[in-house]
Amino acid sequence: MATGWKPNASSTSRPEFRFSGLDSGRNAATVRRVTSCSSLGIGLAGFGTVGSGVWNTLERNGSLISDRTGGGVTLHIAKILVRDLAKARATNGDAPADILTTNWRALVEDPAVDIVVELIGGTTDAYEIVAAALRAKKPVVTGNKALLAERGVELFALSREMDTPIHFEAAVAGGIPIIRTVQDSFVGNRIHSFSGIINGTSNYILGRMTDAGLTFEDALGEAQKLGYAEADPALDVNGWDAAHKAILLATLAYGFPISPADIHVSGIEQVRPTDINFAKNLGYAVKLLAVIREHGDGAVELRIQPSFIAKTNILASVHGVFNAVAVHGDAAGESLFYGRGAGQDPTASSVVADLVEAARGLRQASGHRGFLPYREIGNILPVGETSTAYYVRFDVTDRPGVVAEIARVLADHRIGISGTHSPVNPSNPDAEFVDMVFLLHTCPFGKLRQALTEIEALDCINSAPVVFRIENLG
Amino acid sequence: MATGWKPNASSTSRPEFRFSGLDSGRNAATVRRVTSCSSLGIGLAGFGTVGSGVWNTLERNGSLISDRTGGGVTLHIAKILVRDLAKARATNGDAPADILTTNWRALVEDPAVDIVVELIGGTTDAYEIVAAALRAKKPVVTGNKALLAERGVELFALSREMDTPIHFEAAVAGGIPIIRTVQDSFVGNRIHSFSGIINGTSNYILGRMTDAGLTFEDALGEAQKLGYAEADPALDVNGWDAAHKAILLATLAYGFPISPADIHVSGIEQVRPTDINFAKNLGYAVKLLAVIREHGDGAVELRIQPSFIAKTNILASVHGVFNAVAVHGDAAGESLFYGRGAGQDPTASSVVADLVEAARGLRQASGHRGFLPYREIGNILPVGETSTAYYVRFDVTDRPGVVAEIARVLADHRIGISGTHSPVNPSNPDAEFVDMVFLLHTCPFGKLRQALTEIEALDCINSAPVVFRIENLG
Repeated sequence: MATGWKPNASSTSRPEFRFSGLDSGRNAATVRRVTSCSSLGIGLAGFGTVGSGVWNTLERNGSLISDRTGGGVTLHIAKILVRDLAKARATNGDAPADILTTNWRALVEDPAVDIVVELIGGTTDAYEIVAAALRAKKPVVTGNKALLAERGVELFALSREMDTPIHFEAAVAGGIPIIRTVQDSFVGNRIHSFSGIINGTSNYILGRMTDAGLTFEDALGEAQKLGYAEADPALDVNGWDAAHKAILLATLAYGFPISPADIHVSGIEQVRPTDINFAKNLGYAVKLLAVIREHGDGAVELRIQPSFIAKTNILASVHGVFNAVAVHGDAAGESLFYGRGAGQDPTASSVVADLVEAARGLRQASGHRGFLPYREIGNILPVGETSTAYYVRFDVTDRPGVVAEIARVLADHRIGISGTHSPVNPSNPDAEFVDMVFLLHTCPFGKLRQALTEIEALDCINSAPVVFRIENLG
Repeated sequence: MATGWKPNASSTSRPEFRFSGLDSGRNAATVRRVTSCSSLGIGLAGFGTVGSGVWNTLERNGSLISDRTGGGVTLHIAKILVRDLAKARATNGDAPADILTTNWRALVEDPAVDIVVELIGGTTDAYEIVAAALRAKKPVVTGNKALLAERGVELFALSREMDTPIHFEAAVAGGIPIIRTVQDSFVGNRIHSFSGIINGTSNYILGRMTDAGLTFEDALGEAQKLGYAEADPALDVNGWDAAHKAILLATLAYGFPISPADIHVSGIEQVRPTDINFAKNLGYAVKLLAVIREHGDGAVELRIQPSFIAKTNILASVHGVFNAVAVHGDAAGESLFYGRGAGQDPTASSVVADLVEAARGLRQASGHRGFLPYREIGNILPVGETSTAYYVRFDVTDRPGVVAEIARVLADHRIGISGTHSPVNPSNPDAEFVDMVFLLHTCPFGKLRQALTEIEALDCINSAPVVFRIENLG
């Protein structure tokens, strides 16, 4: 049989990525089975950055994948969903016109499509595509963290009901194989915790604020110019992109359904150079950190907040659009997974790995691994019950008594103060409104919130306080 | 059906780690199939540190594994190979006496054993056990890097012939899932390079030499006292343990059979505090580095040598018995995998992951992934053709003209000198024999070796020069 990549200009044959070999095939009553000698068809829903990256990766490395996976898997792209036929043909001349479609049903229902790759993003059409694929017993490969975080409960239930898997390596941390690591490699571990930098846009912005002293707005503008941030960067800077990914990690590790409504998320929009400098001087780096930690009795801490972490911690060395996830398993111990968290090729790398796995699953049997959720017991620990030290910045009217008043409220709530600082702005030493920073000892976040509510009511306070957690990551 | 871990004191039932569920089972002519409703039996060959760790991990997390893998896999330990029955019973009271044996054939040939876990180490009995298991079509899980590096060609061929897999996550980097990452997650990537610290003992020793100024001998003694080094530490300090692991990584990435005879390995036995200090002052850390890099035309650079790496490189922050492997894939980009490279629990974590995978493979079909080797084309680039900068220490008789003579030979070989240094020992300023360090510009190692052969013949040189590569890891 032929091996390797054979681009076909002819419209009568599909481009094929031959992974070599025939296979005897297996039929099973409960699952959609693919008979022997047939090449598996990929339905690529979405042909933008990542979709093109998948095409390119399969084209470039098709014969290598073929060699490595010897034994019975062949793949080809059978259908591609695009938004605009003419534009798609103009952008990628390799894709034969007869496999392009603007109708997602035509893709999902096409008998030539065995595996559906969902790359259009969003939670509406993407939901319909994934659900329809599962109902047709076609395994799904997706990179859509928002979809799975917000509508995962329904989709995972459908996946279980149809005994058809959803693969989502590409949804978390780009090219870093964190999903497969947690699902498979760490299957024998209780996961004590994850600490992660899992949004490259916000990490890039914080890095530029740190290295070049840029304001948040200027750093965001720079990121947008470089293509590291979207025109609408909301999910990246408000922390919800990281939160979606964290929900998926926690679901895998702890097994119970998690709703976005249960978790605490705050982003980096309020971060100022003054905070970054303060952190630096104290030996900290500022990161948007995802923290997932098991407590007793099935309670799981899950929060995304801007945080100070020790400069000596390895996570402080994660720069630019790189991501990293530190995982602590009870058998494996501490580990760290670092790499490119986004981008065309890294994301395509993960999609391709899932395609190969989906293909093997079709050739062999269903239920390659358990379905989600796998536990009934489990809850998200209310963020009010999570404790760290804090950096809090107040915007105050400068007059005598401000520190005393704020300190009085904190004392009433039994919150310890480890330091205060009210830097003078040399270019405006008599400013009416100044920043005042309080460093607070470890206490539960709920107690802090109560105190801050009272403090905000003081007449010297001009706007909502900005809170950073000071993490002791060990 | 029951779920969870049920330790059984009764000798009539086996300890079971129920992974839940029944399964319809599948029979196939070419592979040993396990019929429905049966629990898969593990034959644990070796009940020392790692074997006990596997037992403990399965006992502690059995119900969690059960929940996560829903759908048709149950496992129990059917037989344990020990060296001394009385001692085994004394050490681990949980293992029922009737499943212990000192006869490896009794373990492999036992019809109750479906998966063989080889943990005895070495390359003789371990070879027999693995080969016999494969011939009986029983998948093998092993942590034995020496066995696979030295006799892998035969064993992988047998594995392919018998269509029965060998799983070896535990053989490389302990709990870090680097094998699964390369085999599965990076299946769509050309691997440009690996750079790794993959022997914890030597890394610990170099770390103590760096942090506490110990000599190699003292640091080794300390490591042995703490259990970080064996009574016979040869493979750890001579670089061959790291080399065995590197062979496995390269075999996976490049697909062709690699013989230990083809690769260059040198260890840390000649490292002295003077080298460490010199490196420090220049901004380097000293590490025993495994370098694997693809060149054109199927040539692969593969070498293990003590190296200077920039202190700012993330690998310089890998301390003690931790390991790390930096991987550069053409799609995924740069990534790093860091964690505990050895030890009871981390190694057991990887064995358990492989057990679950082997169990799935038995339930579903053969050929879960391709066999090794998967390419005919490929060769190890002769180390003489690999280029870096170098630090070379000579032991010389101190007299005028030494630098000139050495420099002359280097010039004859067109090797550039970036610096020399002959530190005076304050406690013995008139020493007859001194260290002389030359820092050399980038050139092929073969050229350096030729030059060093000539230099060693000079009458001022007292012993073989010690060479460190200065790596530019980017």
